[in-house]
Amino acid sequence: MTITMTPAIDNGVNVAALLGAREALTAQPAAARFQWRATSEWQRGTHSRATVEGFHGLGAEQKHRRAFSFDTDHPEIFAAADHGATPVEMVLVGLAGCLSAGIAAIAQNRNIALRSVRATLEADMDLRGILGVGAGVRNGFEAIRVHYDIDADATPAQIEALVAQSQKRSAVFDIVTNPTDVEVTASKAA
Amino acid sequence: MTITMTPAIDNGVNVAALLGAREALTAQPAAARFQWRATSEWQRGTHSRATVEGFHGLGAEQKHRRAFSFDTDHPEIFAAADHGATPVEMVLVGLAGCLSAGIAAIAQNRNIALRSVRATLEADMDLRGILGVGAGVRNGFEAIRVHYDIDADATPAQIEALVAQSQKRSAVFDIVTNPTDVEVTASKAA
Repeated sequence: MTITMTPAIDNGVNVAALLGAREALTAQPAAARFQWRATSEWQRGTHSRATVEGFHGLGAEQKHRRAFSFDTDHPEIFAAADHGATPVEMVLVGLAGCLSAGIAAIAQNRNIALRSVRATLEADMDLRGILGVGAGVRNGFEAIRVHYDIDADATPAQIEALVAQSQKRSAVFDIVTNPTDVEVTASKAA
Repeated sequence: MTITMTPAIDNGVNVAALLGAREALTAQPAAARFQWRATSEWQRGTHSRATVEGFHGLGAEQKHRRAFSFDTDHPEIFAAADHGATPVEMVLVGLAGCLSAGIAAIAQNRNIALRSVRATLEADMDLRGILGVGAGVRNGFEAIRVHYDIDADATPAQIEALVAQSQKRSAVFDIVTNPTDVEVTASKAA
């Protein structure tokens, strides 16, 4: 008789699938080449609407279950209509989502049951950068602070280790902390 | 009798207010110190929900007209529930929103009437990075391409110049192309 120990915890992450993907993509690196996409339509003023739906990966065109749309705008104190979050806040949303997904996946793999994972993010920005005044003032964030409060069946040290490992494998953390080439081209619409 | 020439075009950007802000913040740099924020609550699996509402700037606590919430998740081909865009796609949304807002503001300042501003963004990513396989493969994007199709009362050269100037003053373009410090801390919730 064999007794199979079923993992007692379920954070909702399919770790078996992720480990299988890791094995498959190690063997077939071409399938690991993804392309993520967005399109954006200017609405009026500083208000734009972006849509995310298709992407490429595993050697084929892929689609989300549905299209996701997001409005960005500037707030009223910038004399704008505030139809959405600011573009810089969207970067914080992406950073939070990426680190939190990693925490859930790593916790699952380490058999740590999560009850709650709450992040608070703060980013400092000197507005003189985008206004083009003040020498040496950058346009973007000067620094970002992320704090996680995590309720889980784990010691404080285990919780810190979860968060550290998530940083180490986070796509958005890498995008924000390291430089990425962006090529921007333009043409006049016919 | 004085004849006032009213600008014939209106992209919906209050350029007078922006120029006034530039003057005011040059004189009072402390008011230019902004702090942007987001909070995030893990839902289940790789699904999180982030909320953006308050921020600090012009020497005071500020609020958006309402709270904005965003779901991020992984797609079904990652054995996830696809309750939202991926975190990396949110970065593309922020980049598109930032460059497009800049284009509208600069066009207004240059008296160029915009009819449509459409952006398509593509970002390459090798999934072996976040899966922790393949030496030297980064977690984030390898490169991003942004293309603008702009219908406006302007020559192709003027359109290219608009887009170039927007890049030069874009916060998210700076965040993506240059490194930013991110400090991540964690504590066990009581």
